[in-house]
Amino acid sequence: MNLTFYPGPSKLHAQVEQHLQEAFQSGLLSANHRSTAFMAMLEETLLALRIKLSIPDGYEVYLTSSATECWEIISQSLVQQASHHVYNGAFGKKWFEYAQRLHPATTGQLFGFNDFPPDPAHVPAAEVLCVTHTETSNGTALPLPFLAELRKNQPGLIAVDATSSMGGEALPWLLADVWFASVQKCFGLPSGLGILIVSPLAIERAQALNEQNHYNSLLFIRSNFQQFQTPFTPNTLGIFLLKRCMQERSPIEKISTSLHQRAEIWYNFLRENGYKLLVGLPEVQAVTVVVAQDSEENIRMIKAKAQAAEITLGNGYGAWKKTTFRLANFPAITTDDSDRLMQVLQRSDKITG
Amino acid sequence: MNLTFYPGPSKLHAQVEQHLQEAFQSGLLSANHRSTAFMAMLEETLLALRIKLSIPDGYEVYLTSSATECWEIISQSLVQQASHHVYNGAFGKKWFEYAQRLHPATTGQLFGFNDFPPDPAHVPAAEVLCVTHTETSNGTALPLPFLAELRKNQPGLIAVDATSSMGGEALPWLLADVWFASVQKCFGLPSGLGILIVSPLAIERAQALNEQNHYNSLLFIRSNFQQFQTPFTPNTLGIFLLKRCMQERSPIEKISTSLHQRAEIWYNFLRENGYKLLVGLPEVQAVTVVVAQDSEENIRMIKAKAQAAEITLGNGYGAWKKTTFRLANFPAITTDDSDRLMQVLQRSDKITG
Repeated sequence: MNLTFYPGPSKLHAQVEQHLQEAFQSGLLSANHRSTAFMAMLEETLLALRIKLSIPDGYEVYLTSSATECWEIISQSLVQQASHHVYNGAFGKKWFEYAQRLHPATTGQLFGFNDFPPDPAHVPAAEVLCVTHTETSNGTALPLPFLAELRKNQPGLIAVDATSSMGGEALPWLLADVWFASVQKCFGLPSGLGILIVSPLAIERAQALNEQNHYNSLLFIRSNFQQFQTPFTPNTLGIFLLKRCMQERSPIEKISTSLHQRAEIWYNFLRENGYKLLVGLPEVQAVTVVVAQDSEENIRMIKAKAQAAEITLGNGYGAWKKTTFRLANFPAITTDDSDRLMQVLQRSDKITG
Repeated sequence: MNLTFYPGPSKLHAQVEQHLQEAFQSGLLSANHRSTAFMAMLEETLLALRIKLSIPDGYEVYLTSSATECWEIISQSLVQQASHHVYNGAFGKKWFEYAQRLHPATTGQLFGFNDFPPDPAHVPAAEVLCVTHTETSNGTALPLPFLAELRKNQPGLIAVDATSSMGGEALPWLLADVWFASVQKCFGLPSGLGILIVSPLAIERAQALNEQNHYNSLLFIRSNFQQFQTPFTPNTLGIFLLKRCMQERSPIEKISTSLHQRAEIWYNFLRENGYKLLVGLPEVQAVTVVVAQDSEENIRMIKAKAQAAEITLGNGYGAWKKTTFRLANFPAITTDDSDRLMQVLQRSDKITG
C-alpha cells in the first residue's frame, strides 16, 4: 500500500485496522441505533471528542453524514434571509454557491489567496458569517487575529468550515458558533461522517427560527443527540472508529504543537530545496496542507519520483491541478513518513542558508 | 457475540470481517473520491447491484447516506405540490409525516395492518404515490397484485420504501419508479448507506421539475453517479463492503426463493408451537420480518430464554414493544441460525397437525 500525502481522504491511522476488527467482533454493528449499547457508544464518542478536542462547556457536538451536509444544515436551520461568505478558494466558494441556492440573497466576498483576509471592519454584519478555516484547495488558513477581530465586529453567528484542520489544530472554539469538519482529514479515518459543533448562541438562534421541516433539521438532530441517538440509522462503524481513535489520541494541544512544528520544518525544507510555495505570505500559510508550485513538467517529474518510492503526493486542485502538489500535514502522518518524503524531494541544488 | 434476529441493523454477513480487512489493505479508504481508483470501485459496485438484483435496463442506481435521506430526496426533487401515502404502520406513517413537513398538501391513507391494502381504484391519483413494501414495525408486506393494480391506476410516479426487503426479495421493479432501501437489513452490512433506484419516468419527472437547490438534489446526484462519482465524500468503506458483498452473492431470484421457503417454515413453526402471529392474514404476512404476539410476561420469558441461548430476538415496535417479538428473515441468517432459534422456541405443548 502506497504512503499517501493526499489531503483527504488521507492516510488512515495505523490503529484503524485493529479497530475495524474490534468493531466487527463487538456486535455493535448489528445493534439497533436506539439500543442502550449504541447509545452508550455514542455517548463515549461525544465525550472523547469533547475531552480530546478541548471543546468548551455549553458547546454541543453532533455527527452528520459529511461536512457538505453541514453546509446545508447551517443554511436550512440557522439562516432566515442570507449568510455572508468571506472566502479565498474553491471550497469556500462552493459553500457560498450552495448557500446561495438555498437563500438567493446570500452574499460573498472574495479575497486573494496570497493576501490577508479583509479587515473585519469591512466585512458586512451578517445573520451568519461563513469562513473557511483551512482552505484545502490552496493551502491557506485564516490567521487567529482575523478570527478574533471578526468575533468583535460581527453581531450574528460565525460559522467556520474546519474540514481540513479540526482534529489537527487546536481551534479557538469561542471565536465562532458553528464549527464543522469531516473525519477523513485530520482524524485519519475512513470517510462517511461529519462533525458539527455548535455554541449556545447557535442553539438559541436555531430555537428562535424553529426550523423543523427536515430529517436533518438542527433542532431534530439536537433532540436526538441529547438522548445519544441519531435522527436516522447512522454510519455506526464510522462512529465506532471515531470513538476508538479519539480515546487513544493525545490531547489536541499536544497534536497541534507538533503539527505546527512539522509545518515549519516542511515550509523551510521546501524553500531550502528550491521549491516555490503557492502561498508566500507566512501569516496565511496553512499548517495542515502545504502546497508547492512548479512547472507542469517538473510537477510531473516530482510526482513520478515520489511514486517510484511508493509515495502518493496530493494533486493540485482546480486550476493548479498540474502546476502544484499538495502535502497533508495530518496527525496520522508520522515523522518517519515525512522524513521518507523529504528524502525523495531533496534536491542536490539545495539552497543553503 | 450473540446471534441476532433483530430486523435491522441486523446480523452481518460472515464475510464482512474479511472484507473489512481487504478494504483497509486496498488503500481505497485513503483514495480521493474523484480518483480513478474510487470511480472504478463505484462502477463495479453499481454493476454488481444491477446484475445481482436484476435491475431493469433504463433504471438507474445511486447511493445515499440512508433510506431516510431518500424520503427527503423524493419530496424535494420529485414532488411539486404533494405526494399521497398509503400506509399501515409506523415507518409508512413517519414517511408521510416527513413528506408533509416539506409539502403541507401531502395526504395520507391509513389501512389496517391485518387487512388488505385499499382497492387501487380508491387510491387517489397522485403526483407521487408512496407505499412501504415491507413494513418493519408490524411485519406486513404489500401483495404483488396490489402493486400491479396500483401501477395500472396511477397516472404519476410510484415510490416504494423497500428498506426491509430489497436485497432479500426479488422486487417487481417495473411496477414502480422509485425504490429505496438501506444496507443494514437484507444486505447484511453495517449501516451508513442508502440505495436509491429510479426509473426513466422518475428521471424525466426530475428533469421537468429541475430542482437543483440542494447538495442532494436528485439531478445533482445523477450527474455525479453518471461519472461514477458522488456529490460529496461518501462512506467509501460502506461502498467497498457493498461491492464485495454483491459480488459474492447469489442472484436475487435464488435468494428470494429460499427466503420465501424459510418464511413459510417460520410461520408454520410458530403456529404449530402455539405462538400467535401479529399478522393473521397470510396474503399480507411479510417474508423478511416475522412478528409473534403474546402477553407481556410470556414475551419477556421467551426473550430471556433466547438470551440464555445467546440469541437476541427483535423487540416489538412502538405500541407492540412488549407484546411482540420480531424475527428478521434476512439472507445473512443461515439455516443453522434459524434451526438454533427454533430449538429455543419449540414448545412441549406443540399443536400437531
